[in-house]
Amino acid sequence: MTSAIIVAAGQGTRMGPGTDKLFLEVAGRPLVAHTWGRFDAAKCIDQITMVVRDGMQTAFKDLAATFHFQKPFQVVEGGEHRQDSVWNGLEALPSNCQLVAIQDGARPCTSEEIITATLQAARLVGAAVAARRLTDTIKESDDSQLVSRHLDRTRLWSVQTPQSFRIEVIRQALAAVRQKQIVVTDDTAACELIGQPVRLVENSAPNPKATLPADLTYIEILLRKA
Amino acid sequence: MTSAIIVAAGQGTRMGPGTDKLFLEVAGRPLVAHTWGRFDAAKCIDQITMVVRDGMQTAFKDLAATFHFQKPFQVVEGGEHRQDSVWNGLEALPSNCQLVAIQDGARPCTSEEIITATLQAARLVGAAVAARRLTDTIKESDDSQLVSRHLDRTRLWSVQTPQSFRIEVIRQALAAVRQKQIVVTDDTAACELIGQPVRLVENSAPNPKATLPADLTYIEILLRKA
Repeated sequence: MTSAIIVAAGQGTRMGPGTDKLFLEVAGRPLVAHTWGRFDAAKCIDQITMVVRDGMQTAFKDLAATFHFQKPFQVVEGGEHRQDSVWNGLEALPSNCQLVAIQDGARPCTSEEIITATLQAARLVGAAVAARRLTDTIKESDDSQLVSRHLDRTRLWSVQTPQSFRIEVIRQALAAVRQKQIVVTDDTAACELIGQPVRLVENSAPNPKATLPADLTYIEILLRKA
Repeated sequence: MTSAIIVAAGQGTRMGPGTDKLFLEVAGRPLVAHTWGRFDAAKCIDQITMVVRDGMQTAFKDLAATFHFQKPFQVVEGGEHRQDSVWNGLEALPSNCQLVAIQDGARPCTSEEIITATLQAARLVGAAVAARRLTDTIKESDDSQLVSRHLDRTRLWSVQTPQSFRIEVIRQALAAVRQKQIVVTDDTAACELIGQPVRLVENSAPNPKATLPADLTYIEILLRKA
């Protein structure tokens, strides 16, 4: 059995004050309903776990009713950091779940192809993530906004979600994170702690995350084309 | 006096075989005519130098006539690498030119605001580049597409063009590159060789480069909105 955990517990601040980006209306639906819909429609997914902020449970259950989602789902309360939210999602998974695809709630254009491909790679390697080769040149900077280092872009990938795992792998990786009391920016970073290899799965389709207001225009176009 | 050098001598291979991406029709014009038009309309630019592949000079002169570009321009032959093309452009600049904005021909959505801002920063610091803070997590990989290193994205910027310079700075930087016989991916990387600081100028507007076929959809939308 394969589950999706959709992390929808964050409070992005870069969209502007007081704005819950997950519920911004884009191409006729709240943003997070597009994300959910992609996983609801994906054949490779059996069950969906939505991880949300406390107080938002009813709003999410209403979404499922409004958009007639078909797959079994549960709504789970998130934690302080993303990794705590994922942990709560993992704890709530059915015990016969072997593979999980972890998805940003604010990444609504993810294709069924890439969900399937990361799950297949995770089955083989243990951990896999959708990624795009960088086409722009990347610099590291100090706080003064002066360039401090030039990076070799031919070795650099921008990672997205889904990040997919065999269940025991992500459980062990996040347990290590919790034990060491550190904060990681994504779930594959946790894998480093336990020496678990992570496969990059190239995604040629656009799969942006809504972070800044300017992202929404592009996302709207992608969703209307689909 | 301030010049723009538009580098339009490359042969991108990622758009598919036999395709000259600079002449792909996007939003009613060849891609590179949008780029040229942005600089033709920018008040901060006095003169434009197009650097093109040998044999393409007439095609570019025809573009200027077709789209009624107003600013003085010259068409210069490019070199083997991007840095050689920029060098040829610099060699052809009027002798009273003090500042130069160097632009990718395949980056057609660049705003007048960011051109002006990089030129102002270059006047102060010597070198400045349009850049965007990375919102996605970045990984370094080995050849097997396994993740080999996780990078701290809070210090990472994706650099774009224009890359703007005081003339003597970019001349000295590229002379150092030529003397050492190395290849650099962008003009600010050359500045590192001579210890020249480079200011990152945050660009909040989308400014994509056409590299992959999927980029064109987004670019078309941005151009039609403008």
